Amino acid sequence: MASTSVDVIDIDDPSDPRVDDFRDLNSVDRRPDLPALPGGRVGKGLVIAEGVLVAQRMIASRFAPHAFLGVDKRLTELDDALENPTLRGVPFYRASADVMADVVGFHLNRGVLAVARRPPVLDVADVVERAHTVAILEGVNDHENIGSIFRNAAGLGVDAVLFGAGCADPLYRRCVRVSMGHALLVPFARFDDWPRGLSVLNDHGFRTVALTPGPGSVPLREAVDAAKVAFLVGAEGPGLSETVMRASDLRAHIPMSRGTDSLNVATAAAIAFYERARSGTMNA
Amino acid sequence: MASTSVDVIDIDDPSDPRVDDFRDLNSVDRRPDLPALPGGRVGKGLVIAEGVLVAQRMIASRFAPHAFLGVDKRLTELDDALENPTLRGVPFYRASADVMADVVGFHLNRGVLAVARRPPVLDVADVVERAHTVAILEGVNDHENIGSIFRNAAGLGVDAVLFGAGCADPLYRRCVRVSMGHALLVPFARFDDWPRGLSVLNDHGFRTVALTPGPGSVPLREAVDAAKVAFLVGAEGPGLSETVMRASDLRAHIPMSRGTDSLNVATAAAIAFYERARSGTMNA
Repeated sequence: MASTSVDVIDIDDPSDPRVDDFRDLNSVDRRPDLPALPGGRVGKGLVIAEGVLVAQRMIASRFAPHAFLGVDKRLTELDDALENPTLRGVPFYRASADVMADVVGFHLNRGVLAVARRPPVLDVADVVERAHTVAILEGVNDHENIGSIFRNAAGLGVDAVLFGAGCADPLYRRCVRVSMGHALLVPFARFDDWPRGLSVLNDHGFRTVALTPGPGSVPLREAVDAAKVAFLVGAEGPGLSETVMRASDLRAHIPMSRGTDSLNVATAAAIAFYERARSGTMNA
Repeated sequence: MASTSVDVIDIDDPSDPRVDDFRDLNSVDRRPDLPALPGGRVGKGLVIAEGVLVAQRMIASRFAPHAFLGVDKRLTELDDALENPTLRGVPFYRASADVMADVVGFHLNRGVLAVARRPPVLDVADVVERAHTVAILEGVNDHENIGSIFRNAAGLGVDAVLFGAGCADPLYRRCVRVSMGHALLVPFARFDDWPRGLSVLNDHGFRTVALTPGPGSVPLREAVDAAKVAFLVGAEGPGLSETVMRASDLRAHIPMSRGTDSLNVATAAAIAFYERARSGTMNA
């Protein structure tokens, strides 16, 4: 542990105020990763990374951890990542599993947490500037689906995730965990003006492709051969709004067997990302 | 409701023994869908379908429901499906949402349950006989992943799911629910002799393709052009065992971005199923 940058501080008392940023993680109205709303209402607006892998990815991301809480075993496992000079002087609160459980409110089997403040939000136009493939979500309000979409985006070469109306917070702990930390690494931004803001994609030369099993759609494989592609996906059930489908350049479907439903939204997105990578330079 | 085949019976007392097959659904050791083990130990070995859509699919499957428990609204919604002559005389226990919650042990927002006995298990050779594409699972012990694999199999034209060692019960309520009922419709079977039993696939002219990000694997697109293909998938993390990989005809990987993990097992399977359908007759 000689080379670690963090300050290791032992915590024996679960009520110690120094670990308040990790308190009551499952509380509906007090969890530290509730977004801060205008006017200072509710949340601290923090971001929580759970487990060694996700904490490592947070350290590598633009979300700079300002504290850790973990058991000694995880401190050892994080050793290399904690050598990062950006962590100089950052406290690593070392506690027993029981003290940790008292602080967070349940037994956390991943054994370590990192916490960061939310950095400034990114602008859609800036995010799109350097991208060739993006995913745009509308009405996706399930944290696990959003987490999976980030994970699939990272794995299958998608450059950014953009949020239209009605989507859940991608920085909620469960979402970050399901994303395997990629919600902290894949750039994302939110449209202020939805769906009119979609025009920025066309301004940047993107083909916008609405994924829908509905009529007037081409098979997915015929939709992805453009220099820049933006996939639009909606929530399971309602799907994309008619307005958004009309605003898109093309509608595409994944060929499905008769008598089945559409796929889960994250699975459908993964297949679109795969088809895009398959026909593009990734496999060349 | 004139044409319905079921007998509607009102239940006011949650302790009524007639609804015992729906009792304590979340109980670890008393839930009715615990498998019956040899020697009569533990479970009743029942199968529970939750919600209108999944109940409809159970009615259409080889799992014949012998009772329903639901609120009046769901009875109405199921009307057409309940006209099925195989349901003549089957009781539909009609209860309030509160009585239902007392019986099952929690508030069930899907409002209706159907229960069936497990039919005889199918034989691997019989299942394989009529199939062109199958998925074979090893060590997949997460019910939601298994449910997703059934849903993806149904949607993307896979004929059967086969279970090697170390897999969870595909007929657990949560798995059936996540599968959208397709765990009841897509034929499945379990290998008695694992992995030696895999030879039955070769006997039936299948190419066995092990999905693995490891060395010696070809890109997925190069693996699927056989008349019959069996995809082998392992659990996230450990993946397929070395023995199984050695026993397969070919290893194939999904091309991934650097610095990312493998995909979730159900997502990887969905991409393999999609690639198979893409290169096959489904899109012809």
